[in-house]
Amino acid sequence: MPDTIELKNRPRLIAGAAIAGKKEGEGPLGGVYDKIIADDLFGEESWEKAESRFYYTAARTCLEKGGITPEQTDVLLGGDLLNQIMSASMAARELHIPFLGLYGACSTMAESLCIGAMLTDGGYVGHALCAASSHFCSAERQYRFPLEYGCQRTPTAQWTVTGAGAALLSGDPSQPALCVCTHVTIGRVTDMGIADANNMGAAMAPAAADTLRRHFEDTGRSAVDYDLIITGDLGQVGHDILMELMQQQGHPLDASRYMDCGLEVFDRETQDVHAGGSGCGCSAIVLCSEILRRFQAGEIRRVLFMATGALLSTTTSQQGETIPGVAHAIVLEADA
Amino acid sequence: MPDTIELKNRPRLIAGAAIAGKKEGEGPLGGVYDKIIADDLFGEESWEKAESRFYYTAARTCLEKGGITPEQTDVLLGGDLLNQIMSASMAARELHIPFLGLYGACSTMAESLCIGAMLTDGGYVGHALCAASSHFCSAERQYRFPLEYGCQRTPTAQWTVTGAGAALLSGDPSQPALCVCTHVTIGRVTDMGIADANNMGAAMAPAAADTLRRHFEDTGRSAVDYDLIITGDLGQVGHDILMELMQQQGHPLDASRYMDCGLEVFDRETQDVHAGGSGCGCSAIVLCSEILRRFQAGEIRRVLFMATGALLSTTTSQQGETIPGVAHAIVLEADA
Repeated sequence: MPDTIELKNRPRLIAGAAIAGKKEGEGPLGGVYDKIIADDLFGEESWEKAESRFYYTAARTCLEKGGITPEQTDVLLGGDLLNQIMSASMAARELHIPFLGLYGACSTMAESLCIGAMLTDGGYVGHALCAASSHFCSAERQYRFPLEYGCQRTPTAQWTVTGAGAALLSGDPSQPALCVCTHVTIGRVTDMGIADANNMGAAMAPAAADTLRRHFEDTGRSAVDYDLIITGDLGQVGHDILMELMQQQGHPLDASRYMDCGLEVFDRETQDVHAGGSGCGCSAIVLCSEILRRFQAGEIRRVLFMATGALLSTTTSQQGETIPGVAHAIVLEADA
Repeated sequence: MPDTIELKNRPRLIAGAAIAGKKEGEGPLGGVYDKIIADDLFGEESWEKAESRFYYTAARTCLEKGGITPEQTDVLLGGDLLNQIMSASMAARELHIPFLGLYGACSTMAESLCIGAMLTDGGYVGHALCAASSHFCSAERQYRFPLEYGCQRTPTAQWTVTGAGAALLSGDPSQPALCVCTHVTIGRVTDMGIADANNMGAAMAPAAADTLRRHFEDTGRSAVDYDLIITGDLGQVGHDILMELMQQQGHPLDASRYMDCGLEVFDRETQDVHAGGSGCGCSAIVLCSEILRRFQAGEIRRVLFMATGALLSTTTSQQGETIPGVAHAIVLEADA
């Protein structure tokens, strides 16, 4: 079978919610998030529990906007960056919706949408809630250094977004949609030998290029067929590598219609984030706020949303492994 | 919609493979595994890389038995217990099959089969490879203590299985099947307040009871409709709690037709495993060897396979959180 899967029933994305942290709220998209939480502990005792509170709040806000209760939601799909995806699991405990835990690093929002869209398209579930989160403080101390250490960051490093996004999919054709899901391309794990955990853009770009090439070849489409191709989160380094790789592969991207969520979420000039934003929450909050807003405003009619993940762990880094990447893609279109 | 999903096209499980470690090979099922690996490093430099080698070997062996190449496989679904599911991700890098990473702790084998069966049933993929692994040494040092410390274990503790299992699903009705998939019940995260990381059976049993009750209520079935109800891996403690909970809920289990993979994989009298086996690999290797053998021998015609996971992390344990559990169930039947 071709790698790209067509969703014949065009499952509907009926609501989205984005809950952002303080720094994200001060960024260029500050005006479009549902909520901005100034307290990085979100009233909890630890950053990990705070991240779970972001996850839960995004899920609940999304369900409220969609007019659906947790009891009416057939499945929650998603995850986060923490060991054993604790943010998502603890939120799922509170929501008590049947839960499929996913791990795709920063590709999780796309992974959850890909699976959720197929299950909804096939009528296996009526409503699927897809969500992902990350938190700068919990990610830094798990993957890199204690925050108190105040470690210097390299120019290729990205800044993990504090936030969570959730999107509600429905198979009911009578429900008004913000957009519909038409195609899914599942990513392959790709590794070009990058071992620098502070240069994840370079580690992920080859996976993005692989998924994008297969998507174009399967569908007979090219970049011009999309109002926007959205990656998340390659940052400036990965963005530039992807542009170059696609040029080499004979599927050039048009820079004016290619957006990376890691470059949208912060102002790199003033916010000191080096190569851009990252984390599962980055593409999740950009998709669930600004992208859905543009669909509603009629500014875009067809986009490819492709979140990218760097599948590293501290253990593999310490054992000298290179960093595998993965990128899952879903096509979103305006409702006819 | 009801929580239990019927698979109208009855996707086919066409091959399974189980790769076991030395201690597992010395257990009661030693004669039915595809391979027993005596070296706990499997020729690698670390236990984590060894675990990935188990994962890869199970996947490759399963594909060979099914007569399918990696290129013909549309998706690999699965995960393991390690931080950022590194065993599965590194194996997926080598296999280069489109990969959906899952985290369901010890429920992962059932989670991968549930999603794989729905995607195959719906025709979204032609062949889905579902796999899970665990390794005693990598799990002990990640979740508990350095092995060298020689820590005493409590009577309720379980022994993490070293091994990996893989099952190949096909939507092609012309392919001979070991069994077919007919129903899926996705688990809800359930927490009854157990905080002892050495008593995971007690933490997971309520989740198993919740899934089982919903399954019975949705389908109108009871325990007598199954030749076997298989949990994995509650161990002796969780096994007994589940029996009691189901009795209380008015859906009693018949002990002679209820099997827990954690109690099958080791001989508790002679192998010093305390409450039984555990780990993603436990239910994976029992399903992919002994259960499939029994189907082939005509000894069983309908089973409910329900793997259970304890969604704890060292961080949540240190922060005083209780242990949420989850259990996903899939019905397997002999091919008409």
